[in-house]
Amino acid sequence: MKPVITAFAASPDKGQGLARDMRVRWALEEVGQPYDVRLLSFKALKEPAHRALNPFGSIPTYEEGDLALFESGGIIHHIAEQHAGLLPKDAEARARAVTWMFAALNTIEPPIVELEQTRFFEEDKSWYHEHQAMVEGRVRDRLGCLSNRLGDADWLDGSFSAGDVLMVLVLRRLDGTGIVEEYQNLADYVARGEARPAYQRAFAAQAAVFTDANPGSDKVTRQ
Amino acid sequence: MKPVITAFAASPDKGQGLARDMRVRWALEEVGQPYDVRLLSFKALKEPAHRALNPFGSIPTYEEGDLALFESGGIIHHIAEQHAGLLPKDAEARARAVTWMFAALNTIEPPIVELEQTRFFEEDKSWYHEHQAMVEGRVRDRLGCLSNRLGDADWLDGSFSAGDVLMVLVLRRLDGTGIVEEYQNLADYVARGEARPAYQRAFAAQAAVFTDANPGSDKVTRQ
Repeated sequence: MKPVITAFAASPDKGQGLARDMRVRWALEEVGQPYDVRLLSFKALKEPAHRALNPFGSIPTYEEGDLALFESGGIIHHIAEQHAGLLPKDAEARARAVTWMFAALNTIEPPIVELEQTRFFEEDKSWYHEHQAMVEGRVRDRLGCLSNRLGDADWLDGSFSAGDVLMVLVLRRLDGTGIVEEYQNLADYVARGEARPAYQRAFAAQAAVFTDANPGSDKVTRQ
Repeated sequence: MKPVITAFAASPDKGQGLARDMRVRWALEEVGQPYDVRLLSFKALKEPAHRALNPFGSIPTYEEGDLALFESGGIIHHIAEQHAGLLPKDAEARARAVTWMFAALNTIEPPIVELEQTRFFEEDKSWYHEHQAMVEGRVRDRLGCLSNRLGDADWLDGSFSAGDVLMVLVLRRLDGTGIVEEYQNLADYVARGEARPAYQRAFAAQAAVFTDANPGSDKVTRQ
């Protein structure tokens, strides 16, 4: 039985792989699990049928028989529990990899989301640049720590894991800001994630949603 | 062998249980696992010895033999893997409970932290009230969804779980704002968590750090 995930019918990122379904697609591709996708309009996200799956009215969700999950972190954790390839078998290495999943989502992502919101909601405010600089400072504080820890390692803790899936895609949310590029090892780390065949299959699948809906558009590639 | 966690020697919340070591203490008390605490000055947090344990220079950390973890979510997940009482045994119920751990930390906590930062860093700005209202709107959006989902249930998904440990303490970060009290079922939910004997033991242990360091102070109780 193939699990069913949800994604935006019209993703605001136009197929750049920045929406959170990309995290789940990548994880599923890493473990070789085929899946179906149900595309949702912004209106459908707020309707009771979808709220029953995700109380916060967002994507992605994950359905597998009677099991319904939301939260990209929770979904990827479940996929990693069911299949080999995303979390180490050794209990201590597994605990460290799970810690990196939480670090990506609770330490690195929040200031990055805050920076996006600054751009989306404050660009017309007189205080936009002052506040943006404050938030950029918070992002750089965290990325500096992450860069120091990563050093010249390929992945966050030994082998590639679910922590890397989340961290690479969280860092990709900074695309276009130039901030990741200030840390050469982080830029290389993101590129290393993007080069994985499973990443590329996931990226192509989510980009196809945009090109299918916009047949005259150029092929979507990483900008 | 007792695990060792770290906490602030002088917590900015003066023993109100809002620092993240409270999450780990509560989880350890729920499963009946004794622990030791190493208290750290703000200076020590930034030194290489602590950065080796937590690359972001914060508390809590968790040491158990050769295993070193950081991130409250990762630590609690590990405790729940080792001991019964924090995650259901049934695989589907367990996946849903883990999803709530991520929801607490990636959906509910970020706008709450943003609101705290507004108070800490922007109070002297001309735009403080305008920006604060925007962030409060984000917090209320998320809490409204959470309140609708919780309904009249005691806990987020069936029995009490690690997701509730994190969610109750994330909501407690709003203490003093009056926002949780706008949702009666969420206020009751927080009170239900605080009434658990394990919560109370954890609260007393972290409050004692403050009263021990400030012998003339009043006993710390929930404000």
